[in-house]
Amino acid sequence: MRDLRIRWALEEAGLEYRVNLVSQEERLSPAYRARQPFSQVPAYHDDDVTLFESGAIMLHIGRRSAALLPTDQAGQARATAWVFAALNSIEPFIMGLVSVDIFAREEPWAKDSRPHWEAMVKKRLADLAEHLDGRKWLEDRFTAGDLMMATVLRIPRHTDLVTSDRTLAPYLARCEERPAFQKALADQMASFK
Amino acid sequence: MRDLRIRWALEEAGLEYRVNLVSQEERLSPAYRARQPFSQVPAYHDDDVTLFESGAIMLHIGRRSAALLPTDQAGQARATAWVFAALNSIEPFIMGLVSVDIFAREEPWAKDSRPHWEAMVKKRLADLAEHLDGRKWLEDRFTAGDLMMATVLRIPRHTDLVTSDRTLAPYLARCEERPAFQKALADQMASFK
Repeated sequence: MRDLRIRWALEEAGLEYRVNLVSQEERLSPAYRARQPFSQVPAYHDDDVTLFESGAIMLHIGRRSAALLPTDQAGQARATAWVFAALNSIEPFIMGLVSVDIFAREEPWAKDSRPHWEAMVKKRLADLAEHLDGRKWLEDRFTAGDLMMATVLRIPRHTDLVTSDRTLAPYLARCEERPAFQKALADQMASFK
Repeated sequence: MRDLRIRWALEEAGLEYRVNLVSQEERLSPAYRARQPFSQVPAYHDDDVTLFESGAIMLHIGRRSAALLPTDQAGQARATAWVFAALNSIEPFIMGLVSVDIFAREEPWAKDSRPHWEAMVKKRLADLAEHLDGRKWLEDRFTAGDLMMATVLRIPRHTDLVTSDRTLAPYLARCEERPAFQKALADQMASFK
């Protein structure tokens, strides 16, 4: 799932890249774990560095392309704040909801704890919508922060939490309309075949 | 709670700073929310930028001090990966456990879902311990990544998940022995009085 973020970032940046798909078995191998200590996807490497964590990979690619990160330090810091906000202030609650709705749905506690997770997600999405009200992007231009936020807002597609919101729905649509996203999504879909 | 991370980072960096405590009421004010869209602590500003998200503030301070981030891009990217790992691959599960043990402990589903959260935390901590085995720090020197990881490992102090681990316990102790941490913790404690 999280490889889409990096494909999209590389497309926005116009950088050449090669995707290596890894099986579940490979992810548990010592060789992969040396690069990705949590056996997750994605891991990344270029001529300079081997990296894990989609947020860190995103910022690393962003340093190579003004299409993702402004070149001034203040602008970079603001975009970075939104990358962290997506991953630390919003995604964990969305993943909690996905957990009770999907991964752990057979557990007896899943249904009972759903209102808790839904309330947390709604609260954070309302905060985000308040910030976005009247804005096109999170800052004054599209950045890696929007890219990461959009990938997080795409996660609860089994609900109408985002699609029913008069601010978040068009914001996500603006992000998804970008040619770089369309290319990355099509490539990812093709890789499933 | 999360102000400690930033106090500690500023102490490591040797930068002058001033702490403004904010009440719950102030955090909900439009003026504060303009700086911190999720009404959380900490928010940060200096002459160049107003910032939120402890991870972003950490990296911003790190850019000003080689005590927190190596000066080469590859070293910075590696340290950044650990900041994200702490916040996105470990903290969310620890917060899930804290939620069922503390914040939501009166809820009927809290006890039932505890094994789920504990198993998730144990898994991620085991991955981290495997990486740290035989190492002093996450990379070849102390970085902002260790600082952030230590603050995350401090969260489940109501359990022995970290203190009983033969790798993580001494690692956390090494982090907490640092004079900058001791100073930051003492200052934070003093501010509660």
